[in-house]
Amino acid sequence: MALVNENFLKLQGSYLFAEQASRVAQYKAENPAADIIRLGIGDVTQPLPQAVVTAMKQAVDEMGQKETFRGYGPGPGYPFLIEKIIANEFKIRGVELATDEVFVSDGSKNDVGNFQELFGLHNTVAIADPAYPVYVDSNVMAGRTGGATASGQYGRIVYLPCTEENGMKPALPESKVDIIYLCFPNNPTGMTLSKAELKVWVDYAKANQAIILFDAAYEAYIQEESVPHSIFEVEGAREVAVEFRSFSKTAGFTGTRCAYTVIPKEAAVYDAEGKAHCLNRLWFRRTTTKFGGTSYPVQAAAAAIYTEEGKQQVKATIGYYMQNAKIIKKGLQKAGYQVFGGTNAPYIWMQTPNKMKSWDFFDKLLKEVHIVGTPGAGFGPSGEGYFRLSSFGTREDCIRAVERLTKL
Amino acid sequence: MALVNENFLKLQGSYLFAEQASRVAQYKAENPAADIIRLGIGDVTQPLPQAVVTAMKQAVDEMGQKETFRGYGPGPGYPFLIEKIIANEFKIRGVELATDEVFVSDGSKNDVGNFQELFGLHNTVAIADPAYPVYVDSNVMAGRTGGATASGQYGRIVYLPCTEENGMKPALPESKVDIIYLCFPNNPTGMTLSKAELKVWVDYAKANQAIILFDAAYEAYIQEESVPHSIFEVEGAREVAVEFRSFSKTAGFTGTRCAYTVIPKEAAVYDAEGKAHCLNRLWFRRTTTKFGGTSYPVQAAAAAIYTEEGKQQVKATIGYYMQNAKIIKKGLQKAGYQVFGGTNAPYIWMQTPNKMKSWDFFDKLLKEVHIVGTPGAGFGPSGEGYFRLSSFGTREDCIRAVERLTKL
Repeated sequence: MALVNENFLKLQGSYLFAEQASRVAQYKAENPAADIIRLGIGDVTQPLPQAVVTAMKQAVDEMGQKETFRGYGPGPGYPFLIEKIIANEFKIRGVELATDEVFVSDGSKNDVGNFQELFGLHNTVAIADPAYPVYVDSNVMAGRTGGATASGQYGRIVYLPCTEENGMKPALPESKVDIIYLCFPNNPTGMTLSKAELKVWVDYAKANQAIILFDAAYEAYIQEESVPHSIFEVEGAREVAVEFRSFSKTAGFTGTRCAYTVIPKEAAVYDAEGKAHCLNRLWFRRTTTKFGGTSYPVQAAAAAIYTEEGKQQVKATIGYYMQNAKIIKKGLQKAGYQVFGGTNAPYIWMQTPNKMKSWDFFDKLLKEVHIVGTPGAGFGPSGEGYFRLSSFGTREDCIRAVERLTKL
Repeated sequence: MALVNENFLKLQGSYLFAEQASRVAQYKAENPAADIIRLGIGDVTQPLPQAVVTAMKQAVDEMGQKETFRGYGPGPGYPFLIEKIIANEFKIRGVELATDEVFVSDGSKNDVGNFQELFGLHNTVAIADPAYPVYVDSNVMAGRTGGATASGQYGRIVYLPCTEENGMKPALPESKVDIIYLCFPNNPTGMTLSKAELKVWVDYAKANQAIILFDAAYEAYIQEESVPHSIFEVEGAREVAVEFRSFSKTAGFTGTRCAYTVIPKEAAVYDAEGKAHCLNRLWFRRTTTKFGGTSYPVQAAAAAIYTEEGKQQVKATIGYYMQNAKIIKKGLQKAGYQVFGGTNAPYIWMQTPNKMKSWDFFDKLLKEVHIVGTPGAGFGPSGEGYFRLSSFGTREDCIRAVERLTKL
């Protein structure tokens, strides 16, 4: 008899954004005339940069000609893209990487979700709370968390609360942990850590032979000079950190799909005898066995964001979204809401009025002012009483949303 | 201390095709003038059909315009593609499927590798031997196999030998198994099963509440009318089977990346209390949590193979490769080799001369006649003494390869 992976049965309800989409679809079906503004799921709305379009079409043409056709590419990605990533994202910030320390993929969600496979089940996982739900859910599926309590927390996860009191910056765990998920600029709070604040985590990881899984999907939105873009700007991080990067939010690739993961060769995990094993080589084995590589035209498209034209177009789009963020943030502050983020990230994290439950606030906003946001509780227990608005909408929608929220 | 997933340490050497590529690269570095013919890895060489190129470029243009830009698509794929798949691949063979029974992805390797996550660790897995190495390796990584014996077999896997004696058709297992990997047309042997032969497996699975993971990546190469293209052509299969399909070999998508998996809603797995759980919904949860969807231009490209123009172009390319297969098969038979496959599949499975070890034959062919094939032992213990040649090369290379093998 084929037995189910019973860990899947420990998951709580649907994946957050699937649940959100389903509630919106139901409302829309019942109220087809409602003029809904969608600032919920962090999906971009501006088109691909023209440099990307041109490069991708050229790559498609190559695929249509026998002389230039490409079949299977190198599992970890084409050197032409990896070299540009290293030069433009890391070397300019003083971070040296070898080409075999960068793994191109078709999505950071995939990489973040799959990376935990490299770790044994007896590790203690610490997750900043609130957080992108994939961190928790992928560990639940693997069997690293135990079951959920009545309050929706998992007993074996160490939650690192980010609250108004600590300025949305997680404190070091009180008990010892082995794997730490950090995301800065943060999804959903929009907050960042300084280099000194990040170093506290790197030092902790080194002292405890822990691994930091650093999600930097939003680094392109950093506006302030002093904020680090990569955890590898912190001394010693190569030994204890893995970094996830994505073109989704950087260059409008949510529907085109390209991302990469940086795994320095010094980063190690240990077996029962205490022998070190190289995470980079373990991921190489995983990715060449269970992943067929990223589409060649997509990789060619991604490389085009590093041309002069591409850089300018990406910068303009990010500027547009960050202007949206400023409009939403200022508007909400003026209307008397308590808000976080929005300065170095495309997300505004607002307190619900009168500490209303966040799914109740979701329903209220959807029904009364036809705005879709994301309920904070969907990101973890500490997200209860908060609500995430994305600045990825159109300018017009952001302005209209502020007007509606001000009236509410 | 971060602990490794010790199951990864039970893997044997590198992933087969990585090892193969490394030996070829080393030889080429030492012998840069060698005129190497590559019939090893099953990678296509003919360009994308022009209908696909046109559709994909149009989709890229849409991504560059605000009005037609697409961000995140539906996790399981766009309905425009799923509907075409159902109509053209299944309905014409009398197989009815609902749109939410087809999940589009960026590769069958990914799906085949990841699907085992839905099953508990205490299932007994049966794998036809020889087989595509991902079946074994992904189960080793998950901890479902135990360690390898000196002969390279895993104690907890039930191997189903495909040998000259049984005409490369696996017999039902003697002990009870829960999950069964079958691939027809077979990689690497190129053999097929009739509908009656497949029904024996469906009946076994129903009697034992087992699940068949049916890999049909090569179904487009079937030439004989009587051979089933889908396991769902067999009565009762909806309750016990999942089918993996790919555009890689069908339409030259090895570098473009698109595939799909069919999971009927009746297919169930069981928890410790014997309660049934729907595999379709489990995979939906897995895929929406750990996969970001398939690139929109890639899905638009895949849909174009179902236009009249696309169908004709795909048919022409498959005809080209199957003519190659015929040339290799007939040539080798004439030269006195014992060969299988090549009639309804792009692979020719040959016995090595004098039962030479297959990696030795690999080295001999590479060094003496500069031909790259794939050693049968890389596909499992029963592959020892065999060798796989692919017909995905150019016509000229296939003819030259036969000449060289005849002289050998």
